[in-house]
Amino acid sequence: MPVITSVRSYDVRFPTSLELDGSDAVNVDPDYSAAYAVLEADNGERGYGLVFTAGRGNEIVAKAIESYGARLVGLELDELVSDLGAAAKRLVHDSQLRWLGPEKGVSQMAAGAVINTLWDVRARREGKPLWRLLAEMSPEEIVSAIDFTHIQNALTPEEALEILRAGEVGKAERLAELAANGHPAYTTTPGWLGYSDEKLVRLSKEAVAAGYDMIKLKVGTSLEDDVRRMRLAREAVGPEIRISIDANQRWEVDEAIAWTNALAEFDPFWIEEPTSTDDVLGHADIRRGVAPIKVATGEAVMNRIIFKQMLQAGSLDVLQLDSTRVAGVNENLAILVMAKKFGVPVCPHAGGVGLCELVQHYSFFDYAALTGEIGWKRVEFVDHLHEHFVEPARVVNGSYVAPVLPGTGAEMVAQSRDRWVFPDGAGWVELRAAGRI
Amino acid sequence: MPVITSVRSYDVRFPTSLELDGSDAVNVDPDYSAAYAVLEADNGERGYGLVFTAGRGNEIVAKAIESYGARLVGLELDELVSDLGAAAKRLVHDSQLRWLGPEKGVSQMAAGAVINTLWDVRARREGKPLWRLLAEMSPEEIVSAIDFTHIQNALTPEEALEILRAGEVGKAERLAELAANGHPAYTTTPGWLGYSDEKLVRLSKEAVAAGYDMIKLKVGTSLEDDVRRMRLAREAVGPEIRISIDANQRWEVDEAIAWTNALAEFDPFWIEEPTSTDDVLGHADIRRGVAPIKVATGEAVMNRIIFKQMLQAGSLDVLQLDSTRVAGVNENLAILVMAKKFGVPVCPHAGGVGLCELVQHYSFFDYAALTGEIGWKRVEFVDHLHEHFVEPARVVNGSYVAPVLPGTGAEMVAQSRDRWVFPDGAGWVELRAAGRI
Repeated sequence: MPVITSVRSYDVRFPTSLELDGSDAVNVDPDYSAAYAVLEADNGERGYGLVFTAGRGNEIVAKAIESYGARLVGLELDELVSDLGAAAKRLVHDSQLRWLGPEKGVSQMAAGAVINTLWDVRARREGKPLWRLLAEMSPEEIVSAIDFTHIQNALTPEEALEILRAGEVGKAERLAELAANGHPAYTTTPGWLGYSDEKLVRLSKEAVAAGYDMIKLKVGTSLEDDVRRMRLAREAVGPEIRISIDANQRWEVDEAIAWTNALAEFDPFWIEEPTSTDDVLGHADIRRGVAPIKVATGEAVMNRIIFKQMLQAGSLDVLQLDSTRVAGVNENLAILVMAKKFGVPVCPHAGGVGLCELVQHYSFFDYAALTGEIGWKRVEFVDHLHEHFVEPARVVNGSYVAPVLPGTGAEMVAQSRDRWVFPDGAGWVELRAAGRI
Repeated sequence: MPVITSVRSYDVRFPTSLELDGSDAVNVDPDYSAAYAVLEADNGERGYGLVFTAGRGNEIVAKAIESYGARLVGLELDELVSDLGAAAKRLVHDSQLRWLGPEKGVSQMAAGAVINTLWDVRARREGKPLWRLLAEMSPEEIVSAIDFTHIQNALTPEEALEILRAGEVGKAERLAELAANGHPAYTTTPGWLGYSDEKLVRLSKEAVAAGYDMIKLKVGTSLEDDVRRMRLAREAVGPEIRISIDANQRWEVDEAIAWTNALAEFDPFWIEEPTSTDDVLGHADIRRGVAPIKVATGEAVMNRIIFKQMLQAGSLDVLQLDSTRVAGVNENLAILVMAKKFGVPVCPHAGGVGLCELVQHYSFFDYAALTGEIGWKRVEFVDHLHEHFVEPARVVNGSYVAPVLPGTGAEMVAQSRDRWVFPDGAGWVELRAAGRI
């Protein structure tokens, strides 16, 4: 029986702030980073997980991964991997560690990365990419992986089981369809605040030419700029392409309503993160105030309990789960099933480092085994940093191509990981030597 | 001009799990711990801050304190201390670090400890304990210390100023009264789940004899046990003494209502943490379901934005701020002023390590400069681990005695700190040698 011998963490950072890729109204200078987790057992089996961060502080998450990982060292891998619901609870509800959240922030993200190393092992053992593993698991096993603590007034295990059983009808056909055609994406590549008008227009047109039917623009720093940029983008793509906008939590509630409505003439599809991601009631007010423009949020929503309330309060038209913000695959499953129950479409957040690689699996699962619908649901795509992953996310003609390698998609190319370990990897050493940082 | 040369952190833990002091339905075996922050400037000035934790994971908070502290090294102390609002925002809204929350969990707590080292310097410079410093600051300066981001639909700077100006009437008399008589407390000492019935009864009687008019019992593991323990406690203290109960987030929403009502015959004053501390809407449902029993929460509420919603949604009868859960003195001020606006009494959470020493200051300020009322408001008191602080919290005849030493109360006795540094302090080395851990 293999025994876990280590869970190592790596503080991997990429110098994206040098180019202003990823700049928005709040994240003005991110260095896209991954706190990367590698679990190893004494038989050589390995599992990978990661947390995306914006640079500084990645070392804190890496430290937290070590602390959570230490709870697994010495345990039998088979026992953990055969009951991933129990494994996740063991970490999330650890009687001392839970004080650090509970279930939020650094500790939740780190627990998630460690939990995901176990899912990665499971998927590798079964020889399946995560989306197929999940879609082919029995409804009973999916339910057993979900932690229903503090969400039972919105979703009971019995309801979840019923939803998942209903999702089995036509599943085989949908799996084949996904393997052949993939899942539609949208792109945020044109819309970073740091880009010039010329670059915005050029990238918007390129996005349409590449097959996307939705793009997204960052807004929220200057209304005058936003009006100009929205007009340029709308002129560039024409009336048929959806343009969503994203304020990255920049606004107060009233301000969000006024600002969004001031852009209504350019027909934005959704307004994303209009205010604090913790503000369930504020989002509900904003949703009422900007309809029919949709309200989207989720990339910074910390756990299933906030999502539960957003669904209960009618705060959302679009739920944007983020695979590394919450406690791993398990909590993403809880959120997906809740969203299905409340009839709210899920369009996962991606970008950064590794998020595209990870979140695509949830949308594939969502279509194959949960909702059986795509409609206007799109998975975010941003075209940078994919080359650092063993199976880079790929979008062809506006759709994510189904991953085929076994695992969750988190495994990084070892050379990339070592080159960009902060602060002593060769990449960082060279940047310092060149005086660029 | 003094310049900050270091912000060091210490992982200090006390082996309280050996005695089951502090055991409740969720925190079954805490080792009460402090991630302790010491700021030092090149002129020798020092400021102290801390985060309370339950043991494991304290090292993560200590690491985060280093990361936040590093943002201050090299800066001029006077500039930071003269504008504590700007200083706090600089840390809380750091463009890269904020991804780790935003404003929640490990990063928020660590930011708070570092911010509080600056408040500690400020109070020392003025020769005042924090409560007096705050009460004697101008309403304008208090308002400038508050971060109104994402709460302006509940409290504007103008409203805060008006509230604080109204609080100035009679302030001098109240300050004198506090200095003479202190502020009423309640005690949780009798009610830990790990205690025998005999110990519960004995400690309950001792609490009344010592002058307390309210005690608190932990509940939530077994209804049968809770009924028996509540009956014993009620018999021990008689009908006039308030008994509150505390479930430490153990329940689902419906369960909380049923369980609390099943204890109603023993006249509980409030039910504390009936469910997830993130569940604004759930608390509102519970409050409607258990009235006239009051609903209290706050020790794990992560920031002013959740408290805002709890106040907006009518989730609370009692707001229990925790001085080391949120982003320092600044965010506690925001919460206190919001609570005053909504007319919800604040009874701070204490216990653990250092919380009694810290939170008392907020209740003194609340009475002196904000609400001018005590009524049934009580500050929690638990009688352990005070000897490790330079100015231990003191309760005499059921009331906290006003602190007199300059500062926030966070400074630990250096010998205690060094003895209980984990894992290599002499205290831990001795426990290991004795085979007790």
